[in-house]
Parts: sequence; C-alpha cells; structure tokens
Amino acid sequence: MAFQYLTNTPLAQAQQEYLEKLIAQGMEPPLERVPIAEACGRITAEAVYAHICAPHYHASAMDGIALDARLTFGATETTPVRLSPEQFVVVDTGDPIPEGCDAVVMIEDVIEDGDGGVRLYSAAAPWQHIRQIGEDICAGEMIMPAHVRITPAAVGAMIAGGVMEVAVLKKPLVGIIPTGDEIIAPTADPREGDILEFNSSIFSGMLREWGALTKTYPIVKDQFGLIKQAVFDALAECDMVILNAGSSAGREDYSCQVIAEIGEVLYHGIAIKPGKPAILGVCGSKPVLGVPGYPVSGIIVIEQLLKPLIEYWTKAKLSMEQSAEAVLSSPVVSGLKYQEFVRVRLGYVGEKLIASPLNRGSGVISSFMKADGILEIPQSQEGYEAGEQVKVQLLRPEHELRRTLVAIGSHDPMLDELANMLHIRYPDCYMSSSHVGSMGGIMAVRRNEAHLAGIHLLDENDGVYNVSFLKRYFPQGGVRLLECVGRTQGLMVAPGNPLGIKEFADITREGLRYVNRQKGSGTRILADYLCRQQGIDSAAIYGYGREEFTHTAVAAQIASGSADAGMGIWSAAQMYGLAFIPVCIEQYDLLVPDQAWESPLLQQLLEILSSEAFRRKLEELGGYQVGEPGRVRLHL
Amino acid sequence: MAFQYLTNTPLAQAQQEYLEKLIAQGMEPPLERVPIAEACGRITAEAVYAHICAPHYHASAMDGIALDARLTFGATETTPVRLSPEQFVVVDTGDPIPEGCDAVVMIEDVIEDGDGGVRLYSAAAPWQHIRQIGEDICAGEMIMPAHVRITPAAVGAMIAGGVMEVAVLKKPLVGIIPTGDEIIAPTADPREGDILEFNSSIFSGMLREWGALTKTYPIVKDQFGLIKQAVFDALAECDMVILNAGSSAGREDYSCQVIAEIGEVLYHGIAIKPGKPAILGVCGSKPVLGVPGYPVSGIIVIEQLLKPLIEYWTKAKLSMEQSAEAVLSSPVVSGLKYQEFVRVRLGYVGEKLIASPLNRGSGVISSFMKADGILEIPQSQEGYEAGEQVKVQLLRPEHELRRTLVAIGSHDPMLDELANMLHIRYPDCYMSSSHVGSMGGIMAVRRNEAHLAGIHLLDENDGVYNVSFLKRYFPQGGVRLLECVGRTQGLMVAPGNPLGIKEFADITREGLRYVNRQKGSGTRILADYLCRQQGIDSAAIYGYGREEFTHTAVAAQIASGSADAGMGIWSAAQMYGLAFIPVCIEQYDLLVPDQAWESPLLQQLLEILSSEAFRRKLEELGGYQVGEPGRVRLHL
Repeated sequence: MAFQYLTNTPLAQAQQEYLEKLIAQGMEPPLERVPIAEACGRITAEAVYAHICAPHYHASAMDGIALDARLTFGATETTPVRLSPEQFVVVDTGDPIPEGCDAVVMIEDVIEDGDGGVRLYSAAAPWQHIRQIGEDICAGEMIMPAHVRITPAAVGAMIAGGVMEVAVLKKPLVGIIPTGDEIIAPTADPREGDILEFNSSIFSGMLREWGALTKTYPIVKDQFGLIKQAVFDALAECDMVILNAGSSAGREDYSCQVIAEIGEVLYHGIAIKPGKPAILGVCGSKPVLGVPGYPVSGIIVIEQLLKPLIEYWTKAKLSMEQSAEAVLSSPVVSGLKYQEFVRVRLGYVGEKLIASPLNRGSGVISSFMKADGILEIPQSQEGYEAGEQVKVQLLRPEHELRRTLVAIGSHDPMLDELANMLHIRYPDCYMSSSHVGSMGGIMAVRRNEAHLAGIHLLDENDGVYNVSFLKRYFPQGGVRLLECVGRTQGLMVAPGNPLGIKEFADITREGLRYVNRQKGSGTRILADYLCRQQGIDSAAIYGYGREEFTHTAVAAQIASGSADAGMGIWSAAQMYGLAFIPVCIEQYDLLVPDQAWESPLLQQLLEILSSEAFRRKLEELGGYQVGEPGRVRLHL
Repeated sequence: MAFQYLTNTPLAQAQQEYLEKLIAQGMEPPLERVPIAEACGRITAEAVYAHICAPHYHASAMDGIALDARLTFGATETTPVRLSPEQFVVVDTGDPIPEGCDAVVMIEDVIEDGDGGVRLYSAAAPWQHIRQIGEDICAGEMIMPAHVRITPAAVGAMIAGGVMEVAVLKKPLVGIIPTGDEIIAPTADPREGDILEFNSSIFSGMLREWGALTKTYPIVKDQFGLIKQAVFDALAECDMVILNAGSSAGREDYSCQVIAEIGEVLYHGIAIKPGKPAILGVCGSKPVLGVPGYPVSGIIVIEQLLKPLIEYWTKAKLSMEQSAEAVLSSPVVSGLKYQEFVRVRLGYVGEKLIASPLNRGSGVISSFMKADGILEIPQSQEGYEAGEQVKVQLLRPEHELRRTLVAIGSHDPMLDELANMLHIRYPDCYMSSSHVGSMGGIMAVRRNEAHLAGIHLLDENDGVYNVSFLKRYFPQGGVRLLECVGRTQGLMVAPGNPLGIKEFADITREGLRYVNRQKGSGTRILADYLCRQQGIDSAAIYGYGREEFTHTAVAAQIASGSADAGMGIWSAAQMYGLAFIPVCIEQYDLLVPDQAWESPLLQQLLEILSSEAFRRKLEELGGYQVGEPGRVRLHL
C-alpha cells in the first residue's frame, strides 16, 4: 500500500495542517458546567459575570451607631448634636445598615447620655464607615473573561458574586493503546525477551500535566483485527487516541493500515529525530496518533504533535516554556534530513550556562529523566560546534539550575549517595553527575564546565595518584585537589569464582571473556598500566575492546554471564553478589577549580563530605578506605 | 487572659520559631508507599534504586543474525567466512541474544548460500548491534535521590528498573474550620446580613496548588464549646488545622482561648498588614493556625505562616517564585509598625514593568483576583514614592505580562467585552483595565504607563470631546486618538422612575439622594459642567460628594434603594433594570501613545475593535452609537 512508504514532512507543516484538518472536521472543545467548588484550576469557557453585588447589602465597617447623616449636620466641638434613642441603631462590624440610615459613627466618638440618648461632637459625612453595596464586585460586572485559568482567588470572587456554577472547557480524554506481542505489564521479574510496557505511564503523566485526562487500555497483540477493534473502542470513549508502537513500516506494523481503514492518514513520517515514523491520523473530528515504540521517540512525537492539540482544547499556551542561552560542552552532529531534538544536562558554572548533550539513543529513558533541557537543531542545520552558543528549552526551573553542582568525571556510586545527602540536608541544593572518566573530568574542569570532577589517575613514574596530572593539565594553577576516598580496585568475577582467577594476569587465559571500561576512565588507565607492567598484550585479551561506562555496568555484564571478568570497585561487585579479587588500592579524589570553591554550594558539599553520616554511608557501601574526606591535598 | 493582648511579632521571627517549635514537638512528614502508577508528581521520600537492569537481557538492536563473533574473525571482501545453519540464529530487533552468541550481523550484510548457510564479508566485533544488559539502567544504581518530584520520565525509568512501588512523602492533610454566626454556605440568594463563606474555597485551592490535601468542615457558630469540639475533631483527622475568623481579641473571638486550652499559643499578633491578628497555635506536633476573617488577610497569613510548613512537608521550595524589578506608578504609604503586602497590577510598557497598587482593603477579594504581583514593604520602610524602582513577586508568568495590554482610564463595561474577545481570538494576548477616570488615563499615558486610555472629556468652550485635552496635555505630540463609540449619558433612576425625574436639574430636588462619580472621571466632569451651565449649586445636592468608581457601582446603589439618581451610561442602567433619562451623547475614544501603536498587541486589539463581532456586541449591550471604531481621529 502506498501509505506504507514513509514521507519526510517538515514538522511545522505537519503541526499546522494536522490542527487545521481537525478543526475543519469539527474538533472543538465542548464546555461543561461544574459547581464552583470543583472549578479551581479549570479554564473558563465563557466570560463569567457576577449575579449579585459584593457586599450584597450596605454593611457597617465599624462597631458604632448607624444614623441618618443629616441629623448630625452642624455638630461641632462646641455645639454637639443630641440624638434620642429612636434616632440611631447600635451596629457591629458587618451588620446591615438599617432602613433610613446612611452613615455610621464609630463607638469611640459616641458619648452616651445615660437616658439612652447620645451626643455627637462632629458631623457625619453621608456613607462614612459603610461598606457600600458592590464595593468589591457589582452585579452584572465581568468577573473573569473566557479562556483563563480559575485561580483560588477567582473562586472566592465568583462565590462573592453569587456564581454557583461555572462553564469550563471540558478536559480532553486521551485514550492510550499499547500494542506489541513482546510487551508485558510492568513487573519486577520479567522473562528474557519480555519488554516492560512503561510508555503509557510516561505519556499519561505528560498529558495530565498538560491538563488532559487519560485512559490506558489493555495491551493489544500485533494483529490487525485486534488493533482495529481497540481503536474503535477508544474512539467511542475518548476525544483523542494514541496508538503506541507499530507505527513503522515493518512486517507487523499495522497502525497505519488500521487508521487508514477507520479514518484517514494525513501523514506517515515526519522529518524529526527521534520520532520519524509518526502517523497523523484523523477519524471524524478526532486525532488518532501513531506513536513509535521507543520511549524517547514517543515522548518527542507526543510533545510535538499531540501537545498543540491539547493546547487548542485548553486554550493555554503550554509551549511557552522557559528557554535560555547555553554554551555547548561538546559538538552535536545532525543530518540535514531531520529536525533533531537532543537532550542536554545543564549547569551554571559561574554565569555561563553549560549544555552537555546526553545519550541520544531513543531507547534510553534514563537519559530523558536526567535531561535538564532540550536542544532543537533545525532541519537546515548540520549541528553545532563545542563552545557554540545555543538556545535550549528548559525542563527544570532556572533557579534550580543555578543551585546545581555539576560533577563531571569518574564514576563512583558513592557520588550518587553524596548528591542525595546534600539535597536532603539542603533542599534547594542539587548535584548532577556525568560519567565521562577521570580524563574527561579534567578536560571539563579545564573548559570551565564543571564544579568538580572525581579522578583517580595513577602516574606510572612515581606511583602517586592525580597530583602529576593536575600539574600537567593546570600549569597556571587555579585548582584544588580534595581528598575523597581510597578505593579497592580488583577483578570482578562470577559468584564463587568458578574459573579460579587469582590475579590480573589470569585475564589472558584462553576462553576467558573480559569486559572493559571506556578509554580515558581511571579504571581503564589502570588496566592498561597493569598490562604494560606485566608484559601482557592487551590485543590478545578477548573482550578488551568491549567498553562499559560505569563500574556497575561492568558488574552487570558479569552477573548476566555474558563476561567472565572485569576491573572495578568492591562496592559494584558487592551490589551484584560477584566474587572479587583485589588488585590494588587507588586514591579517588575530587578536583575543584578555585572559582567553584568559593560558591556556597561547594562549601555545603564539603560539609557533607566531611560529615560522620557520609563516613557511615561509605562503610555501608564497603570497599573504601576513609581518611579525611574533604581535606585539601593540593592547591595549585 | 494575658494572651488576648495582641503581640506585634516580626514575621521572620514568627516563621522561624513556629517551624522550629513544631519540629521540636515532633512534626515530620511520614512516608507512604504508593504503586508506581500513582507516583507521578509525588515527592520521593528516599533514594530509589533499580531492582533490575534495563534492558534486563541482551537484546538485538537490529534485524539480522546472532553469532559468536570469533567465528567471523578474518573475514574480508576477498576471504569471506562461511557459516553453517547451526552456527547462527536469525533474530529480530528486541529479541534476546541466544546463549553462546555475542554479536549481531545486520541482515543487509548477510549473503544467503541457498543451502541454509550464509557468507559474511567482514568480521563482527564482539557485542556489535547488541543492546547490552544495563545499557539504560543498571540494577543497584540510584535512579532518583530523595526529596525530588517524580516526573513522567522518572516513572518510566523506575518501571524499567523494576520498581513497582515507591516511597513518597505523605501529603499533609489540612483541616479548614469556618466559624461565625453570620457566615453561611455559598448561595446566589443571600439575605441581608448573611456573609458568604468563600474563604475555605480560596484557602483550599491555594493549599492544593502547594501539594497539600484539604478537608473543609461545616460552619461552626461562635460558641466556645462548639469551636473547641471542632478543633478536636479536626486534629484527630488532619495534620494541620486552620481556624478561620475569631482570631482577633473581640467579644466573640474564641480562637485564641480554644487553642490555648487544647495546646499552646506561640504568638497572637504578627507585625504584618494585612493579617495582624493571626494566632500561631501548636497542639502536640500539629499546627493550629488562627486566621483572620477578611479574605485578603487570610490569604496573606496562610501564605506567610502555613506555606513554610507545607514546604517542610513537601521538601519543596514553593516560595522560589519569580520576582521582577518594577516601577511604581503611584506612591505607597506604609507604617513603620508592620511589614506590608500590597497587591499590584503589572504591565510592560516598552521595556519598563509598571506596578500599579490595587485597592488595599482586606475585604476586597476582587483586587486579589486581579493582582499580577505582590509588593512587600519591609517593616522598617515608610513606603515608596511614585516612580521608585521596587521588587515585586510575580503572580503571573512574565511572558503573559509581556503580552498584556494595559488600559488605564475611564470605565466602560464594553472594555471588558473587548478584552474578552481579544483573548478568545488571540489566546496568548491579554488586556487589563484599571478604572481611574479619563483624566487619570491621560496622566498614565503621559507617564508612559499605559498602552491605551479610554477618555470622554468635554471641552466646554467648543463642545468637542477629547481633542483639546490631547493638545493641552501632549504639546510634544506622540499620541493618537482612536474613535471608539458614542455613548448615551443620562440619569439612572429607580425602575418606573417613581420620583418622576425629567431632566438633569431635577437632582436638586429636596429629599432626592444623588450618587456621584469620582473626581477626574469624564462623567463627573460632565455633571460638574451641567451644574455650572444650568446655574446649579452642586454643594446643595444631597449626596453629590458620595463617589463611586464605575457606572455599574452607581447603578448598584440606585438599584439597592440607597440613592435616587446618578449619572451614568445606558448599558449600566439596563444591567440593573433601572429607568434612564437621556441627557446627552458623548464621544468615548481611546488614547494611544505612538510607542504602543507599533506593538503587535495593539494591532490585534484594533482588529477586534473594527470587527463585525464587536459591533454586534455593542448592539447587544445597547446605548452605543457606532461609527467607525478604530479609526484614527487625530494623530499629534
């Protein structure tokens, strides 16, 4: 079928035509009337007018006496006016002003005469000390215009104006249909080949934050008839439908065919990355959106193609997000074929906002979770250079970014614990870590893009950690080296050490499958050094080129049985129940540039670093030698 | 009792001591475990660690064949490697990698041999085209730290990491007890003296926006025993209690006494305005806050004294609101006795953010609803001058303020309709109107504080409206006068005109009660002119000094029977079913400075102004003569 060939429609065109098409087909948010008690946070569908005045009667604004002001005219210090009891009425604050009265005299200014009458020594101005009808709100006045959000104060004003029910825009109900033979409901105990269905949870959360309602349907198998029935059912109940996965043009991708049968496919294939194989379907006046299966692709498609429709329903400009100018820490390459969305980590180092591109894999949900912003690369652009000024959309408020310590360097699970303890102690203080290895950390600090870097670099000449590297890479000085921990590095092997590995040299054994760390990481440098020292040809080690980015990732490979040995720290082995052959103790330090040293954030981190609680946490994790964490070992 | 004398405790001290006292008494947010499906938007109570790896098995990243990479070593263009059928397995994307395999070769690179075997022309690198275990998330890794908000993407990451339940901070449940003999539940048909209870709706809306849950209890009469029982009941169910009204030191103010009996009163009386008579009560580890009855006072007290406690529970810095520098349009006077909170309207005129103080009455909820920001005046400060630079807390996002037309000038309900139509047509465009009369509008435009001003000023010399005023007040030019509408002004009188009023001069009649507009308004200038013209001594008119700020407010007084006649426009009389004696037709125009003229916002307004729909709306309102709205009458 012709529509199975994907188009490459520019995003802006697709967005505009999709909305226009749906409006032309009759899509329009209906209104619903809700009791005022349920109106807070909703969007008015029409202008709201007051039914009654507030106050709705003339009320005394004071404790005192109410009277006809004319009776007091001429009263002065020397010529008081005397009123008999029937000429005034005692009132409290809030009391209605009696018929025939038009002023209140404060009780302090009233001299009682003993016989029930009173004397006044000054004239009352008509309407003094009276909250007149409509002082706050007049009946008939517009309290709120159409298409604005009802705030708590607006609820108060509407009740004061006698509005007991208000016409609001109905929230769109979005049906989410997960499909796929391998997809299963979330479980902590999946079998091999099972894919956990978490997309619907992500999409639902996003849509609810935008003011929609959602309904997630049971998982549907990859069969044309079943999918078609599911879409039919969802269309009967919902205002919009998301059909998740099966949006490509593969063997078992039925989404496009189903939508074409029920309604019409406006476009199949949008020029965005990730997210290309999206399907813009229209069934009657309702959108049916075919969304790719990879979570990040799905998020982008829903943000770019469904959000504008939600905005049309809620009459709110949700895309008015904050954006900011940032400096790219590394180059981003993009093809001319697609408009690309790249997730970035953001951090203020000094007054400079640094954007570090995250893993662009469309299956990697953890990088989406870690993202602080999104960099959009136009279709016409081939990417950006490192150091280039770019505009990024912020996913976190700017004040949070300004209170975030940026740690770039070597990985250690202890850093996550440190970040956690810091934020618990100082709720407005955050730390974000990127794992790029020790050398990557040194380079980030040199480029002024990090507040701190974890490093553990052995100088082969003197056997001392870190010091000579600082001298070499910071000839001008301006950095401190803070003591952190001593770590036991060793070989992680399967539980019980079935291959009987005794020392580092054993990794050359025939049939042994090694798993390595990436180049530039301190652990890799250590392994390379050990090879040279022991005269081992690393090219002869099977798997030496298989690179993982963290200690835990190496441990995970060994635990899964796909590798027999890998270099890493004791705590990672412990986490996965692996056996551990200690090889050496290394010094893991924190590199801090002087500029960051002076920031209160860093001083707060130092407080945690040198705390008793952190020491206890290290003991709990195990495999660390704790001296004086936070001590300045060297200041260049 | 001693505590019935109000203290004047500085706010910062009260905030700090209240929180410290409650923590010392054991206040601490408990955690609760919720299924992951309900976790979105909640705050983590503890760090969350992955239970399984994602992917949790080695998965093929391509359609192709899985094999042992070693079998392919040495394969080149000229020396292909041949594999027999038992040496490889066909896999689809997402399929598990079979035992003994460690690489995938893309189907495009596989040459079938017909007998079931295949040929490969290049070697496969170990682990190529395989999504390795833990590529996204490693078991044991920290997915989220404690005390952060769970985003939709984080929900996805947690499910991927096998987290099915998550420990989150319990939302505090705040009980709200409305008290008072005159207080009644909201109704559109209150009797004289009834006060509508809308405070609890406002408070509840605010608290829910901050992440709390609320429960509003039935209204309690002003009796010590009943109030005490209500507080007891609320403390049994809730984490915090608000006792609304009765917080002063008057006859029937029992709040303080009740709290002192059940628990302890930390302070009664805080040095803030509005909001002074607040009561900071502590019952066990729970706060019981006595809140004044006037809505604006109550809002400030809850914002300043309860919000920090909510923040302690939610571990979120809710008070990190946006603030901005603004220029005051009029002076604000404040006593040295209190820290004062003044609501302001905000608008960008050019690049200058203008703050116009709103009605400071603590009973006036409509001004709170209209507020765009809050100006805080420290206790040590006597106020600010007009034109002074001040810091204001923003209640609306800055991008909305930048898209808001500021109209300052004469009142006409038609302006509200115009604003409404503008926002419906352009959802990101707003118009805010302040009613300060025609002369006030001219002055605001002169001070560069408004985009437009409605004016209707009669020149007694030539009988022409507006033109001579522009020439006088803008000798340098730089303004346009846009035609808006002709309006019929006249005397509004009770339905059926029971006093038989025939012409303007009848307002001098003995016994007739007049109600006037404020000085500087066009309608007041018209009335003054008519008096002079007809030789009437305005001092002899009863009520001539009684001033209202809008046409509708004048109509409301007459409709309520508290005045017999007032000058106003036909549509206001119509709104209240009043009789109307036409006096003259006046020209109501819009004054627009050149700077504003060029803004797209104003051009959008012009589009509405000259639209057929606006013309129809004017006809519907009635009393307008419509020529060519939007036409430039004069450009100086």
